[in-house]
Order: sequence, then structure tokens, then C-alpha cells
Amino acid sequence: MRFGERLAERVRAMGTCGVVGLDPFLDRVPGVVPGASRAETADVVRRFCLDVIEVTAPLLPAIKPQAAFFEVLGSAGAAALEDVVAAARDAGMLVLLDVKRGDIGSTAEAYAVATLDDDGPIGADAVTVSPYLGPESLRPFERRVPAGKGMFVLVRTSNPGAGAWQADTGVAREVADWIASTAGDDELGPIGAVVGATVPAAEVAALRQRMPRAWFLVPGFGAQGAGPDEIRPHVRADGLGALVPSSRAVLFPPSGARDADPRSAIAARAAQLAADTAIDRFFSAGV
Amino acid sequence: MRFGERLAERVRAMGTCGVVGLDPFLDRVPGVVPGASRAETADVVRRFCLDVIEVTAPLLPAIKPQAAFFEVLGSAGAAALEDVVAAARDAGMLVLLDVKRGDIGSTAEAYAVATLDDDGPIGADAVTVSPYLGPESLRPFERRVPAGKGMFVLVRTSNPGAGAWQADTGVAREVADWIASTAGDDELGPIGAVVGATVPAAEVAALRQRMPRAWFLVPGFGAQGAGPDEIRPHVRADGLGALVPSSRAVLFPPSGARDADPRSAIAARAAQLAADTAIDRFFSAGV
Repeated sequence: MRFGERLAERVRAMGTCGVVGLDPFLDRVPGVVPGASRAETADVVRRFCLDVIEVTAPLLPAIKPQAAFFEVLGSAGAAALEDVVAAARDAGMLVLLDVKRGDIGSTAEAYAVATLDDDGPIGADAVTVSPYLGPESLRPFERRVPAGKGMFVLVRTSNPGAGAWQADTGVAREVADWIASTAGDDELGPIGAVVGATVPAAEVAALRQRMPRAWFLVPGFGAQGAGPDEIRPHVRADGLGALVPSSRAVLFPPSGARDADPRSAIAARAAQLAADTAIDRFFSAGV
Repeated sequence: MRFGERLAERVRAMGTCGVVGLDPFLDRVPGVVPGASRAETADVVRRFCLDVIEVTAPLLPAIKPQAAFFEVLGSAGAAALEDVVAAARDAGMLVLLDVKRGDIGSTAEAYAVATLDDDGPIGADAVTVSPYLGPESLRPFERRVPAGKGMFVLVRTSNPGAGAWQADTGVAREVADWIASTAGDDELGPIGAVVGATVPAAEVAALRQRMPRAWFLVPGFGAQGAGPDEIRPHVRADGLGALVPSSRAVLFPPSGARDADPRSAIAARAAQLAADTAIDRFFSAGV
């Protein structure tokens, strides 16, 4: 089954489009000691992430590890990421690896092997990619679609500076049209778009119209300020089509506090995310 | 001393703007055995790269490792990259790590720690970065300038699809103006631009005029088709300002052959690159 359909099946089965954002901030992960070696810290991060996976896998369909927070720990962090992705897949979660790679030719091919291939080191289900270098930067990832893999192309982010240098007019339209052309016979295709939660609703609606069968990965929910209302324009009339990652609001308590019992606290916050992003919530809104 | 000035000093001292592109293609590196484990392959790649550094450090001012070719080997490749960067810096080469990262906020900060910081896992002198997410995606790298670090922002590449989705008009101009503003009192500033070798000469001349004190990192030389003539528009009248990486043409013999003695063959090809990219060659052309 192709990636977009696998994702639809899992989102329908779990009734939520919430995604665990796995951003293990070193100053927040319980047990990380300042001054410890990278290897020691990576072990603490690995154990924390494995706990997160164990308690959130029954609640949410997918997990989005942020590569940078593992790369900061060097080779020890890379080893932890490999273990964490394997554990998430074993637990039945789809793994959307947030790497935002963007290169061409043999380099882009190497990034695809490094992140997606099942006989490579990580073997994620999908990755985020940057289209800045042009269509050929996406091809190596696209070639993994028949193997069940997917990708989310940065189309329109909602960070303050996105309007300044991100060519949202021309590039977003061109990329959107290409994404729309890749859906094939799938109700929801294997290649999706990153479309920020706080992008103006009219712009989201236009992108949704251009890409009716694309998954939108929608950063900016929860700790970053957007709520269910901001997500509505991203969702299709059938309640599907948006994926809503939330990291800090699931992994850590608010305002820098520490969890007395991290596992049950994370489970409770993941359940809250599942409720906030229940697909029937969006479905009913669309009727 | 700031990065751009360090680079100028070293380029002047060696008389060449050639850069070793360290792209260890697994099907070309001597001794890589198909079917070997990633750890075994990473050891072979590490030894090959250390040989490359040893024989090219006396000839060329800088080395540009391509992160993807190490990431393809997972955590073992990450460990090899750490060792290779340390060896290159010990040998006196400036290390321009080609990672093309582009993200925002705490994620971009983590990438900067992961690639540039001397107490981080790699500690390169400079990195390549993608500006697609806007000005704030460059800030964490810019904050390392006082520590002697630098970056090369993707401004205008020359791959076939670059014109299609890369917003060379608006984005290239905006990024170029920002880069120009960061030079401070330096004759050559710490923040440079990636400008492809086969970008039309008139466009390169316009970018050079906008960024008179920026280093241009110029991919596309040698195996990728461009020669010294294509580099001339990138170079300033004083013979400085361009950095010309070449990978396959230095690391491997042409047409898939094998070197009988890789170390001396690589040294000979590196000497050829140094001659082809001698700065007096460009200086005399500018007079």
C-alpha cells in the first residue's frame, strides 16, 4: 500500500490526526546532566524517546522525530535516532522524519538512502524535504514511493520570515501543482505538503483546492500558538488530509516545570492532543 | 580573526582557490566491499578520507565534506565524519561542511551546534545553508561569526531545475543584499554565497556587484563541466572571492578506473586542481 493510503488507514483507525513531535530539548529531557558526555546524554535521550513511543503509540498514529536534536549529539545521537525510529515502527507508528534535506544528484540520492531505505540506517516512512534547489532535488525521494515511502515538501511555512524570502507565490504554486500530479489512483497521495498552521486561511484554502488529495503536515499547533480553529482550513471535508504535530505540549509540562511521573504525564498530554485533533471534530465542522 | 579573513589568508598563502570536495562515493572508494556492514564500510571510508586529507592539505586551502555521503552510513558514518573533520583541521585545512541545512528556531540552533560549535560533535569552520525558510533560518549560524565561523548561503545554483523553483530573482537579490551587509570591516566577509559555476556570466556579474566582499562557493567545476573560464565572472579583480570545489576529479580516476596507487594519484590530481585554480591565473585575467 502506498504511503498516503497507509497513513489514511491509520488516522481513520485511531480517529485522530495528531502526531507526536519528537524534539528532545536537552534542557528539558529528565535526567540529562549538564557536562555529561555526548554518549551518556544520548543514552538518556534514547530512553526518554523510547518511553514516549511506548505511551503514545496506542493514542496517536504517527511520530515526527526532529533530526537536529539527535545530530547535536553527533554519532551517539545518530545511533539513538536509529533505535528510536526502529522502536516507533515496531510499535506501529508511522515515522515522519523531519530532516528538511534539499540537494541534487547523487547527494540527494544519498540522503534518500540515509533516511528512507529499509536497508539503510534509519528507514523512516516519510521525510520532510526542501524544494529550493528545484524539481530534481525531490526525485530521489519520489523514487521511493513504490516502496511505500512518502515525503512532505516545504510549501508554505508560517514563521515570521517565511514571507520575506520564501517564494510563496511562484514556488508554492509550482510545487503544489506537482504534488497534486503525484496522487495517482490514491484518495490521499504519497507526497504531501508542509503548510503552516497560521498561514492565512484564504491562502490555505487555495492550496487545499490545488492539492485536494495531498496530506498537509501542519506545524504550529499547541505550544506554537495555533488551535483547532487554525487547522480547519487545512482539513478536507471528510475530516482527513491534515497531520498536526505537537512536541513540547506533549513531551514536557508547561512553564519549565518537571513531571513527577513523566510516562503518565506524557500519556495524559498525548490523549489531550488526540482529543484536540480528533478527526470527527473537523468532519462535523465541515458539514 | 573572522572566517572570511582567515580564508583569504590561507588562499593567498597557497596561491589557489581550489577546494577538495570530499564526496566518498561508496562504489568508487577503494576497498569498499558490497555487502559489508555499515561499520566496516565506514572504517574504509574513514581511512580513505584521512589519506585524502594527508596528501591534499599541503596543496589546497580547504576541504568540503559532503554530509550525505557519511549519513548514508548512519551512526558509523557520523563517527567517521567527526574524525575526518578533526583530521582536516589538524592538517591546517579550513573545513566547509556541505550540509545545506535550513530550519528555524530551536531546530536551526541545534543544527548550528551540531555542525559549527567547537565543543559540538563536528566543529567545522563553515557550513552551507538553505535560505528557503527565511532570514531567521540563518540567524543561529550568523551568531557563530564572532567565534570565527562562517557560512555559505544557497543563492543561485546552476543545476537544470534551479530556474524552475529557485526564486533567483527575488530571493537571490534579497539574500545577496543581506550577505553584503554582514561583511563589516572585513575585506572579505564571513558570510558567503553559493553561486553555481555555469550560472550565466551576466547574472554572476550582477551578484558579484551586489556582494563585492563575499566569498562565492562555486560548485560545478571539473567533472561537472565547468572550467576556469566559467569561474572568471565569480572572481574579484584581486584574484580572490571564489572557492572552487572539485570532488570526483580529485578523488577518483576518470571513467570508473581504479588507481594503482591512490595516494600519489590523488596528490597529482589535487596539484592539477591547484594549478587550474591558481589565483594569479584569475588575477592576470582581471587586468
